[in-house]
Amino acid sequence: MTLLTYNVKNVFSALRAAVAVIIDPLIKRRETHTLSLVVQKYGGASVSDVASIAKVAENIAARARGGDGIVAVVSAMAGETDRLMGLARQVMDPPDRRELDVIISSGEQVSSGLLCMKIKSLGYDAVSFQGHQVSIVTDNSFAGAKIRAIDDSRIREALAAGKVVVVAGFQGVDKEGNVTTLGRGGSDLTAVAIASVLGADACELYKDVEGIFSADPSVCASAVKLDKICYEEMLEMASAGSKVLQARAVELASKFSIPLHVRPMNAPGGGGTLVTEESDMETAESMEEAIISGVSADKNQAKLTIARVPDQPGVAASIFSELAREGVSVDMIVQNISHDGFNDVTFTVPRADFKRAAAAASGLAKSIGAQHTASEEKISKISLIGVGMKTHSGVAARMFETLAREEINIMMISTSEIKISCIVREEQTEPAVRALHDEFFGGGGK
Amino acid sequence: MTLLTYNVKNVFSALRAAVAVIIDPLIKRRETHTLSLVVQKYGGASVSDVASIAKVAENIAARARGGDGIVAVVSAMAGETDRLMGLARQVMDPPDRRELDVIISSGEQVSSGLLCMKIKSLGYDAVSFQGHQVSIVTDNSFAGAKIRAIDDSRIREALAAGKVVVVAGFQGVDKEGNVTTLGRGGSDLTAVAIASVLGADACELYKDVEGIFSADPSVCASAVKLDKICYEEMLEMASAGSKVLQARAVELASKFSIPLHVRPMNAPGGGGTLVTEESDMETAESMEEAIISGVSADKNQAKLTIARVPDQPGVAASIFSELAREGVSVDMIVQNISHDGFNDVTFTVPRADFKRAAAAASGLAKSIGAQHTASEEKISKISLIGVGMKTHSGVAARMFETLAREEINIMMISTSEIKISCIVREEQTEPAVRALHDEFFGGGGK
Repeated sequence: MTLLTYNVKNVFSALRAAVAVIIDPLIKRRETHTLSLVVQKYGGASVSDVASIAKVAENIAARARGGDGIVAVVSAMAGETDRLMGLARQVMDPPDRRELDVIISSGEQVSSGLLCMKIKSLGYDAVSFQGHQVSIVTDNSFAGAKIRAIDDSRIREALAAGKVVVVAGFQGVDKEGNVTTLGRGGSDLTAVAIASVLGADACELYKDVEGIFSADPSVCASAVKLDKICYEEMLEMASAGSKVLQARAVELASKFSIPLHVRPMNAPGGGGTLVTEESDMETAESMEEAIISGVSADKNQAKLTIARVPDQPGVAASIFSELAREGVSVDMIVQNISHDGFNDVTFTVPRADFKRAAAAASGLAKSIGAQHTASEEKISKISLIGVGMKTHSGVAARMFETLAREEINIMMISTSEIKISCIVREEQTEPAVRALHDEFFGGGGK
Repeated sequence: MTLLTYNVKNVFSALRAAVAVIIDPLIKRRETHTLSLVVQKYGGASVSDVASIAKVAENIAARARGGDGIVAVVSAMAGETDRLMGLARQVMDPPDRRELDVIISSGEQVSSGLLCMKIKSLGYDAVSFQGHQVSIVTDNSFAGAKIRAIDDSRIREALAAGKVVVVAGFQGVDKEGNVTTLGRGGSDLTAVAIASVLGADACELYKDVEGIFSADPSVCASAVKLDKICYEEMLEMASAGSKVLQARAVELASKFSIPLHVRPMNAPGGGGTLVTEESDMETAESMEEAIISGVSADKNQAKLTIARVPDQPGVAASIFSELAREGVSVDMIVQNISHDGFNDVTFTVPRADFKRAAAAASGLAKSIGAQHTASEEKISKISLIGVGMKTHSGVAARMFETLAREEINIMMISTSEIKISCIVREEQTEPAVRALHDEFFGGGGK
C-alpha cells in the first residue's frame, strides 16, 4: 500500500500575511535600542496566588532596576480559566463561543490588575492594558482567534514614561470590538506578538518547567533538558503535542527572529531553553550534530475514515472544504491508491472536534457516495523531531523498526523534512516514547 | 444657637450638564415606539449562581416572547465583587484605584456572558456588551466614575435584529479607554442611563427586596412597602442611607422622567414600588396626603469639627475647597454664629473618607489659624422624607420632640424642602427609627 500524505500545515499563512503588513515596518526600530527592551510572559502557575504574584513582581522589579524596559504578559491565575469554563458549561453546553470568550478573558483581566498593583506597591510605576486597550485586533474566530494587528502606541508611551507595562495575555478584540481569545496557550502568542511589534531584544517565557526536554520527563526518565532548539524543531514539537509552547507563538517568533527564552520561575536570569534560528545552532557545544532533538506525544487526537470514496477528481477537496466549513481543523490525512475505483480516506482531528467531524463525515459519506465511515477516538500521535533528519537518511526506518520491536502497531504515518509522526493506539503512547527516546538518545541524553 | 445649614448637594450638576448635551436630542425618539422597550436590571442576588441565572433568563424570555425589546443590565454574581476586592487588598492596601477597577469590573463581564448564554440556550438570540463595547464613556474618577455619554448604536442595531441585549453594569471606560467603575450600586445607574439614551418605556430594577419601605423592615417591624414614591423622595431616601437604589440612578431617572419599577425577582410582572414624577402621585389611592414617605438611617457617617475658626470672609470656602481637592465628599455642614470673632465648623463625611478628611482638617486648622479639631466616627444620620412636608408645618418640631422623648441627643440638624436629617450617636439609630416611624406612621402603615 502506498501512502499519500498531504501537508495541511497552512494554518499560519493567513496570520503571517496579515501581521507582516503592519509589523514589518516596525521591525527596523529595533536597531535604535540602547537599553534592553524585554517582553516577559508569566503563565498561570506563576500567578496562582497572592504569594506567587509577589514573586513575579519582584522578578520584574529586579529587571526594571537595571534600567530595562519591561512588558509583562500575564495569564489567568492557575485554575481560573478552567473554573470559568466550567461555570459556562453549567449554563450552556456547548457554550456560545462569543460569550465564552467574554467570560474566560476575565481571568487575565484580574491577574493583570493584581500584578500591576503589586509592582506599584514595590515602588515602580506600572500600568495594565487589556486587549481592547492596546488594540490587539484579531479575526472573529472566537476561542481561537488570530492576531491581525497590535497598536503599540500606548505601550510605547507608557515605556517612555518609565512604566512597567502589564498586558493581559490570551485576549484580543475583533474589528467590531467583540472580545476574542487566542486559544489555549494564547498568552505565549500575545507575548511574542508584542515582542515583534516592539522589536524587543528578547522574549522570556516563564513556565512551570525547567525548559524544553528531549521527551516528556514524566514519561521518559532519561529525557534531557535542551539548552537550545531551533524554531522549526520547536514548532514541530509544539504541533506534535509538546505543550510547553504554543505552536503559533513559535511560528511568529520565527518569522520575526525573536529569541525565545523558556525558563522556570526560579531561574529568572538564565537557564531554561533558548529557542532561536537554526544558524545559531551551528555553534552548539556538541561538535557532533544531533540527529533528533526530541520525541513528542500528542494524545489529543482522534481518527476518522471515510471508506470506499469514489476515485473522482475533486472528491478529496469536497471532503476537506466541508470539514473546514464546519471549523474542524484536520491534522494528518492519509489516502491509499485507488482500488477498483474507490479510496479510503483517513484523517485525524483534535479530540474536541471529534463529534462535529464525525457528524460531518457521515453527511459527507452519503453525499459523495462513499460506503461508510469508521472512527477511533483513542489514538495518539508519536513524533520524532530534528533538523538533523535532513542530512541523516534511514531515520524513518529506524523509528518503524523500534516500534515494531515493541509490538506497537502503526496506523498512520506522516512525514515532513524535520519530523516523522506515527499514529498508534493511545495506551501504547508511553512505551512508544520511551523506546524511541532510548533508541535515539541512547537512554542518557543526546 | 442659630444653625446655618448649607446645601452641598451639588454632586449631580456636572453629570446632568454633561449627559444632557448628548442625551437630550435622543429623548425625542421615545414617541416613535410602538412595542415596549424595557431596560431591566438584575442585581447580584438575582445572578448568584447558575440556577438563579436560569430564572433571570426565563424572566427575560417571557417578556421577549411578548415582543418587547429587552436590554438587561446585570451586576456581578453575589459576593464576586467582594471576593475580587479582597484579593486586590491582599496584594496592595489601599489598592491602586485604576487597577482595582480593572479587577472588579471583571465580575460583571462574567455574569453578562453567562446570562447571555442562558438566554441563547432558551432559544432567544442575545448578545452581551461590556462598557468598552457600547462606549459607556465616563470621567476618570476610578471607583466612582460619572457617565458622560453612551453610544447606543450597537444596542439599537442588536435590538433591531431581534436580539436581547445584555449589558455589563457598573463599568465604563474613560476617554483614553481606561476601565472605570461607577461606585457601589453603579449597575442601577447603568440601567437608568441606558434607559435614558434609548428612551425606554420603563426601567425595571430587580432586587432582593419587595420594594421601597417606609423604614428599614429589619429595624422597624411596622414598616410598610410603598406602592409609589416620587423621585425627590426616593433621592432623599437614597442619599439618607436607604441602600435599595443608588442616588445617582434616581437623579438621572428624574431628569429624563424614566419610571423606575423596583421589584422583587418573584414578581416580574408587577408588585414592588414605582418611582415616578410627583405629579403622578396626586392620583394616589389615599385621599389624605401622606406627610412623610419614609424614615431612613445612614450609619456610614463620621463627624469632624474645626474649632475656633477665625470669622473672616473666605475661610469656609478655603476649608471646603481643600476637602474637595482631597476628594472628600462632605454631606452636612453646620456652623454656628460667630462668638468673639471665632466659629466652630462641623461637617460630616462618609466613613470611608474619614481618615483623609481628618488629616486634611488638621492641616487646615493650622493654616487658617483655628484652635483644634475634634472628630467622632460613630454617628448616624436619621432622616424623615416626604413631599408632604412642603405643605405641613411643624414636622421638624414633632421630629425633635419624638427624639427628645426617647432621650436621644441631636448633634446636628440639616433640612431641605422634603427632608429633615438629624445626626445622633450610632447606637441610638434603631430606637430613633422605630420611634419616628411609630410617630408618623402610627405603628401600622401610613
